[in-house]
Amino acid sequence: MTEVRVRGAHATVRADGLEDEVAVEEPLEIRVDGRALAVTMRTPGHDEELALGFLYGEGLIEGPRAAAPPADLAGNTVEVAGPLLREPSARSFFTSSSCGVCGKGALEEVAVHAAPIADGPALERALVAGLPDRLRQPTFERTGGLHATGLFSPDGELLCVREDVGRHNAMDKVIGWALREGLVPLHPNVLCVSGRLSFELVQKAAVAGSPLLVGVGAPTSLAVTLADDRGLTLCGFARGGRVNVYTYSSRVV
Amino acid sequence: MTEVRVRGAHATVRADGLEDEVAVEEPLEIRVDGRALAVTMRTPGHDEELALGFLYGEGLIEGPRAAAPPADLAGNTVEVAGPLLREPSARSFFTSSSCGVCGKGALEEVAVHAAPIADGPALERALVAGLPDRLRQPTFERTGGLHATGLFSPDGELLCVREDVGRHNAMDKVIGWALREGLVPLHPNVLCVSGRLSFELVQKAAVAGSPLLVGVGAPTSLAVTLADDRGLTLCGFARGGRVNVYTYSSRVV
Repeated sequence: MTEVRVRGAHATVRADGLEDEVAVEEPLEIRVDGRALAVTMRTPGHDEELALGFLYGEGLIEGPRAAAPPADLAGNTVEVAGPLLREPSARSFFTSSSCGVCGKGALEEVAVHAAPIADGPALERALVAGLPDRLRQPTFERTGGLHATGLFSPDGELLCVREDVGRHNAMDKVIGWALREGLVPLHPNVLCVSGRLSFELVQKAAVAGSPLLVGVGAPTSLAVTLADDRGLTLCGFARGGRVNVYTYSSRVV
Repeated sequence: MTEVRVRGAHATVRADGLEDEVAVEEPLEIRVDGRALAVTMRTPGHDEELALGFLYGEGLIEGPRAAAPPADLAGNTVEVAGPLLREPSARSFFTSSSCGVCGKGALEEVAVHAAPIADGPALERALVAGLPDRLRQPTFERTGGLHATGLFSPDGELLCVREDVGRHNAMDKVIGWALREGLVPLHPNVLCVSGRLSFELVQKAAVAGSPLLVGVGAPTSLAVTLADDRGLTLCGFARGGRVNVYTYSSRVV
């Protein structure tokens, strides 16, 4: 049989003729005042930030809250202090794709969350194209299995980076960190992700007020449409010194 | 402003100084007997297969059902004939990460779905390593934005391939296709995915009875643990003629 030994964010797998390091994936239950709201598969670490960033992105909290580290680490639970700004959707959705949008009956419901994004800043194109190179991914390099999100100042300084098996978790963790640091709305700081740009990531970035969202990978059609609607500058395929600017290109000079 | 023109699974984006093709992402609501069960962000196409594969993976149906194409294409809804085998989880989850596991309170609940996977087949290591090269991805090549899942015979013949912005959707579509073709349990045919190997993908593959799951990318810790528990051969990093076999290596010779 195969042995999987977990140590923090990575695990060692020993099998017939193989020893390899992989990224850890475990369920986390997010509770508010004792009530279970969501289960997400995530890489352990920064669980309170993940919970806060997630609830903020859903429009359920307006700022940082007390969030307790799991009393029992094996229990994979994080407790956040209520009350919520509104009742979560009453519809009993029980799934999602990798987009994480489940529970929202319509795109229109999303719109209520987002505040307008202010003008500026303007960043040099070369700086935008180079942001992914500044995403340090220590665990990815060991396991090849993690997504990263980074928060950068307009001059390219890395303020915070988080990794996770779930791309949305990585962004939630960064936004949760920023909430605690008093940096939300994120403007003029910008977000950069290590992968593709989905609707859900644009939504989270827009709700948090980031003027730019930069990705190494491709955007989807709905990501472009939403970014255009929210006044967010969406940049994809940022690699090899090049970058595609899909919306609000005035912020890339 | 930016123009996004959708044509099937891809869209053309025109913005300041840019014209690019991107993958289409739109919400799909899955209904059973008129009741909305889930919303997933998916690439349009093969929606009935997606709905059937999804419901099968959740243990809610035991075989193919009547599934109606959306009466109003813009409505992005698919109707499946009931009744369900069991009531979906009563917990009102409203989100997920990219893993798609939301709605399950515990890993134990997943276990009830999976039938034991029979022994064999045994595939040549070189054939396993080369399966990703046989995944034709026409839309990915245009947009760089899609995941693919393929179903292969034990001698490497591609039986079905589906693409989607959501990796779980691509697998659901293939399994839904196989349900309609009478090919579930999938054994001895094997699944191959274009990306990373999460817990959720192993779960879907195991429920559908695939003896092997091959991925181009890295597995997570829980993917390895679950595959080991279910008797599924999990293969990662299948590229450049090489492949890592994480569990049940006896099927790779």
